[in-house]
Amino acid sequence: MSERSCYFFCIVSDLETLAATTPPAPAEQADGRRRRGHATRESILQTAADLASVEGLEGLTIGRLASELGMSKSGLFAHFGSKEELQLATIEAARRRFVEHVVRPSRELPRGRARVEALLDDWLGYLRGEVFRGGCFFCSAQSEFDSRPDSPVRALIIEQLQQFVAFLERELRQAQEAGELDAQADPAQLAFELDALGTAANRHYQLFHDPAAIDRAAAGMRARLG
Amino acid sequence: MSERSCYFFCIVSDLETLAATTPPAPAEQADGRRRRGHATRESILQTAADLASVEGLEGLTIGRLASELGMSKSGLFAHFGSKEELQLATIEAARRRFVEHVVRPSRELPRGRARVEALLDDWLGYLRGEVFRGGCFFCSAQSEFDSRPDSPVRALIIEQLQQFVAFLERELRQAQEAGELDAQADPAQLAFELDALGTAANRHYQLFHDPAAIDRAAAGMRARLG
Repeated sequence: MSERSCYFFCIVSDLETLAATTPPAPAEQADGRRRRGHATRESILQTAADLASVEGLEGLTIGRLASELGMSKSGLFAHFGSKEELQLATIEAARRRFVEHVVRPSRELPRGRARVEALLDDWLGYLRGEVFRGGCFFCSAQSEFDSRPDSPVRALIIEQLQQFVAFLERELRQAQEAGELDAQADPAQLAFELDALGTAANRHYQLFHDPAAIDRAAAGMRARLG
Repeated sequence: MSERSCYFFCIVSDLETLAATTPPAPAEQADGRRRRGHATRESILQTAADLASVEGLEGLTIGRLASELGMSKSGLFAHFGSKEELQLATIEAARRRFVEHVVRPSRELPRGRARVEALLDDWLGYLRGEVFRGGCFFCSAQSEFDSRPDSPVRALIIEQLQQFVAFLERELRQAQEAGELDAQADPAQLAFELDALGTAANRHYQLFHDPAAIDRAAAGMRARLG
């Protein structure tokens, strides 16, 4: 494996890997029936992600989702054998939507401060635009599962937050390496504070329906970048 | 009403009013039976608050709480006529515990920077000490209800956050008036950022079980106060 491909496959976080992966074009897929099955599954999962962003992942039962979709429970059981399987697949589907809106757009910019700023703008735009029906899916899921007993669902939520914070941290470090961000700043501390501001923007915006929360987070982020 | 009592009753937020209210001594209460009834109700509600801090307020049904307490459902119905009544009383009980740990201790200090710092220390100590079984009750409740339809429960959660942010803001303004905090800083912006840091500390600490999250929030708060 060349150094470049090792860098790409071994070091880049899953978030960037996901952003760099182009979904296969329809013609490349085996046949129409499989494609339609895939599209149905994805559409079910995206509805599940919207529902969970409002009512929580624990409320996401096969029965609740079936009633939301106007489908039979047995039809949904054909796709997902259990509530846990449905929850895990929903988190992965939500991650695809998050990557599409927050991670991917700034990937075309060169590493450095402008890319960090674009990423933060996209993140705040995603919160302001309520890309999930109930605001940020991951903010809700993290808070919902933060003190629950260990489970595969909790582990996947933890992994997603670790990846996101590591991703922010690497972006900040690259901006430092480009000489475009204070070299004395601690990227891990800065990533924590940016995550805090974005998540607070989501919570205040969802509670008060006042875009001032997004503006306050944006002002805080600008101040942190200096 | 004198100026002083008007100030006290009309302007001070409910959080400070609660902190200034001494619960009546046992001898002042009408009789032992009423006192025991009150203690039982409070003990039920504090268990409910711990349970909700882990499993959410929506999961707090009369049946779930009865099984947690080893009581009959009908025994609980005698105290709370409905799930909503139970949820509202639980939020008020949680607020009493929050005031006891976070608001009251610093009230004895004079207004100014030292009081703000003591308040923030007490808040982080409350998070680190897991005063509620699942971490901060209010962080969980805000996130759980942020995108749910309007209801009396959601309204009470919103009111609590508004009071807390207004309380932080007033403390910061008093520190500015004492000349102990940068007069150019915007107290509303600062209060938003402090709330963001504290809430992120709770979420990261509960997810990762690593006190580094509390230390990062403390470092962020110190930097914000300048």
